[in-house]
Amino acid sequence: MDLTRREAIVTLIAGATVTALIDATAAEGGATTMADTTSTLAPAYRGSHEPKPLPFDPTKLRGLSEKLLRSHHENNYTGAVKRLNLIQQQLGQLPKEAPPYQVGSLKREELIATNSMVLHEFYFGNLGGDGKASGTIADLIKAQYGSVEAWEQEFRQTGLSLAGGPGWVILAFDAHAQGVHTYWSWDHTHSVAWGTPLLVMDMYEHSYAMDYGANAKGYIDAFFQNVEWDEVNRRAERVRR
Amino acid sequence: MDLTRREAIVTLIAGATVTALIDATAAEGGATTMADTTSTLAPAYRGSHEPKPLPFDPTKLRGLSEKLLRSHHENNYTGAVKRLNLIQQQLGQLPKEAPPYQVGSLKREELIATNSMVLHEFYFGNLGGDGKASGTIADLIKAQYGSVEAWEQEFRQTGLSLAGGPGWVILAFDAHAQGVHTYWSWDHTHSVAWGTPLLVMDMYEHSYAMDYGANAKGYIDAFFQNVEWDEVNRRAERVRR
Amino acid sequence: MDLTRREAIVTLIAGATVTALIDATAAEGGATTMADTTSTLAPAYRGSHEPKPLPFDPTKLRGLSEKLLRSHHENNYTGAVKRLNLIQQQLGQLPKEAPPYQVGSLKREELIATNSMVLHEFYFGNLGGDGKASGTIADLIKAQYGSVEAWEQEFRQTGLSLAGGPGWVILAFDAHAQGVHTYWSWDHTHSVAWGTPLLVMDMYEHSYAMDYGANAKGYIDAFFQNVEWDEVNRRAERVRR
Amino acid sequence: MDLTRREAIVTLIAGATVTALIDATAAEGGATTMADTTSTLAPAYRGSHEPKPLPFDPTKLRGLSEKLLRSHHENNYTGAVKRLNLIQQQLGQLPKEAPPYQVGSLKREELIATNSMVLHEFYFGNLGGDGKASGTIADLIKAQYGSVEAWEQEFRQTGLSLAGGPGWVILAFDAHAQGVHTYWSWDHTHSVAWGTPLLVMDMYEHSYAMDYGANAKGYIDAFFQNVEWDEVNRRAERVRR
Repeated sequence: MDLTRREAIVTLIAGATVTALIDATAAEGGATTMADTTSTLAPAYRGSHEPKPLPFDPTKLRGLSEKLLRSHHENNYTGAVKRLNLIQQQLGQLPKEAPPYQVGSLKREELIATNSMVLHEFYFGNLGGDGKASGTIADLIKAQYGSVEAWEQEFRQTGLSLAGGPGWVILAFDAHAQGVHTYWSWDHTHSVAWGTPLLVMDMYEHSYAMDYGANAKGYIDAFFQNVEWDEVNRRAERVRR
Repeated sequence: MDLTRREAIVTLIAGATVTALIDATAAEGGATTMADTTSTLAPAYRGSHEPKPLPFDPTKLRGLSEKLLRSHHENNYTGAVKRLNLIQQQLGQLPKEAPPYQVGSLKREELIATNSMVLHEFYFGNLGGDGKASGTIADLIKAQYGSVEAWEQEFRQTGLSLAGGPGWVILAFDAHAQGVHTYWSWDHTHSVAWGTPLLVMDMYEHSYAMDYGANAKGYIDAFFQNVEWDEVNRRAERVRR
Repeated sequence: MDLTRREAIVTLIAGATVTALIDATAAEGGATTMADTTSTLAPAYRGSHEPKPLPFDPTKLRGLSEKLLRSHHENNYTGAVKRLNLIQQQLGQLPKEAPPYQVGSLKREELIATNSMVLHEFYFGNLGGDGKASGTIADLIKAQYGSVEAWEQEFRQTGLSLAGGPGWVILAFDAHAQGVHTYWSWDHTHSVAWGTPLLVMDMYEHSYAMDYGANAKGYIDAFFQNVEWDEVNRRAERVRR
Repeated sequence: MDLTRREAIVTLIAGATVTALIDATAAEGGATTMADTTSTLAPAYRGSHEPKPLPFDPTKLRGLSEKLLRSHHENNYTGAVKRLNLIQQQLGQLPKEAPPYQVGSLKREELIATNSMVLHEFYFGNLGGDGKASGTIADLIKAQYGSVEAWEQEFRQTGLSLAGGPGWVILAFDAHAQGVHTYWSWDHTHSVAWGTPLLVMDMYEHSYAMDYGANAKGYIDAFFQNVEWDEVNRRAERVRR
């Protein structure tokens, strides 16, 4: 055995490179971890998510600087993907006898990182356009809110209620009501339980503070000018099929 | 005008019967509320959700008493549906000039009540069965967790981490990873951002305290004995289509 | 070395009996853990909190059963104290290189368990009396709320807003305003940042579901009948000195 | 009556200038609001908090720009104080019959704004110094953490765990343990239930994003260079008296 006990502990807890340990533990026999030895590399614990590149040219958005967009993508989004991988590997390495609070606290971190990854992909995916709502999504919005203006007013006010803190505003297809609906989210953990995001606006301060300081309203204006409604329409059409 | 000013205020804020007020306000002209006058009765603000009856005979479950199940359904689930209706009506009546924190705090209440409604319907819907997992869902679980046993261990431990408080454990179809995954939820607001619940376990203490006191493990055992896996399979098959 | 590597890992992560490991790690030299080797047994990481017994005879309260009170004290309160000890020992054993999310998630668990311990001690401490407010606390309440009745109404409604979930309602001495104030708390983590609890009402469902089911109002009535205002007065007088 | 009904409603809900309404409502007799008519102007509902000026010269801090500090003080801190005033006035105007969720959601907003006000005052109050810990606070830290270095490491890592989101790290005097302790806080609502803040570090992104972008570590370094330990010592000495 070429690792000292202390090194093994440090390696394991840091969750850095766990593959060697997984094999070593398995070789010692018995299923002492959360993941079965037979399922050590089960996808749920593999932690192999890959960040996606920015889907638009960050030098071309109106009112959102390349510096802001690149930092947002590289630090906040990519950081979440990497963290998710570590967390899932750690979850698979927890002993079966781990106290429940330890499982729960890693599952919480997993939810945070998962939603951060997913919502950032929707967010970047719905930027880069000309900001003109039309087509399927406009019809879906009118069916629930009467007009695009009435919906936009609530969406913006919900965004402003999160100014100076974290959060998301999400127009989702609500599978229960079978229509679109705007949801408030206080942080990455919050979401409607049964839905598909269609239009996602990040209100975490890292989305705007570099360019707008505390001026969340200025950011929301810029967001709406850059919405890629064609992508929103594609999402809506996939849901309705 | 047949309401005194004070009555009008009390009625409005209490959010009790707002329909008359909606019409009266509209008649006075101008769009001063969150909902356009033209969209006053827009579905988003109509608040017309109806509670569904228990989908099983509550006298027939193993280890979960009729008294507990009826109280859970009548008080916690039905209460959430009624509250959601009030909240959505109030949202539609907010003045456009309402300070953002007021919009945000009602949108938060809306998310709580929406998810409570949706998750309770999934929960009651996946009870009343014989507890034997098989078919599509077993295959989906094995594909991600290696074995049903490995998955069940993490699901149960996640549940125990919530003992003595609120929360849900949700096996969802994760649309991002295109596979099933277990999610921890601290309260009604927490959920994976892009998914469909397949198997839902309520860990709020009202799900078990009447029958089990603080014995959350006993409740989780009873839950698994009563899972209606056929319904879980139907949900899974709808997602995969 | 008489532990195998795997045993060491399991023991460490389970956080069970870490004292031997602490000594062994220290003996290997170097400060690789969050706690300095010189401060390994620093109070912050010692985890030596002791639960206190119930300060009243649980057979004597009006409308709150001995069974409920003993379960609440033994499972929820004592459980939190034990968990806090484990968490603090684990924190001291984290490697200095631990990823921040891991430190943060244990610090979150520590806050949950700390406040659960502290608030439960205040709660049990302010039960066992005759429910008649008078003296210092009545004066302090009137100074801020005009009357005890006006204060009690808001306190009760705040409690009802938490029915069917977790939470606390706390009348605290607010050191900023230098007066008493009622605070809403959604779960153990929530509290006013600079205050001293005076009257604490547990709204977690384990406080009442065994006796009252979903009838939170009935529980709040019972709570007020059993408040030990003499103890509340002692707390208030200590703060004002 | 010189207000139309609709104007009255808008005014009330917007919570803008409620004094006239308070008197009018009171004149109509009966105690229909949360605040007794006799206690309408009770301090709890008066909403008369005043923001304090920055206690240091914002052009003199190392690594924290005047622009950042002024924006933080004017927008985030002052904004919270103003919002708190509105919220408390609204609370006093709620009808006694208001549904509990409405009371609870305003009480939540009150807690958020209260802690934001209080913690920002502690935060600005402990900046403007030379960053050298000594005296009472150093002794208190050593008594719990073994060394100032060990404590600082955990404090910094807790801060990093909040990077990219909101939160606070708070070294408080923990009245239960009668010693200092570091607490993680996810957002304004989180705090130890019985303590006095001594050293407060804001981790909301508005504390650093303008100057540091996503580089939370750079901000934490700057924070430690500017700590006004004399003020921290004064706080500690007041607690110990």
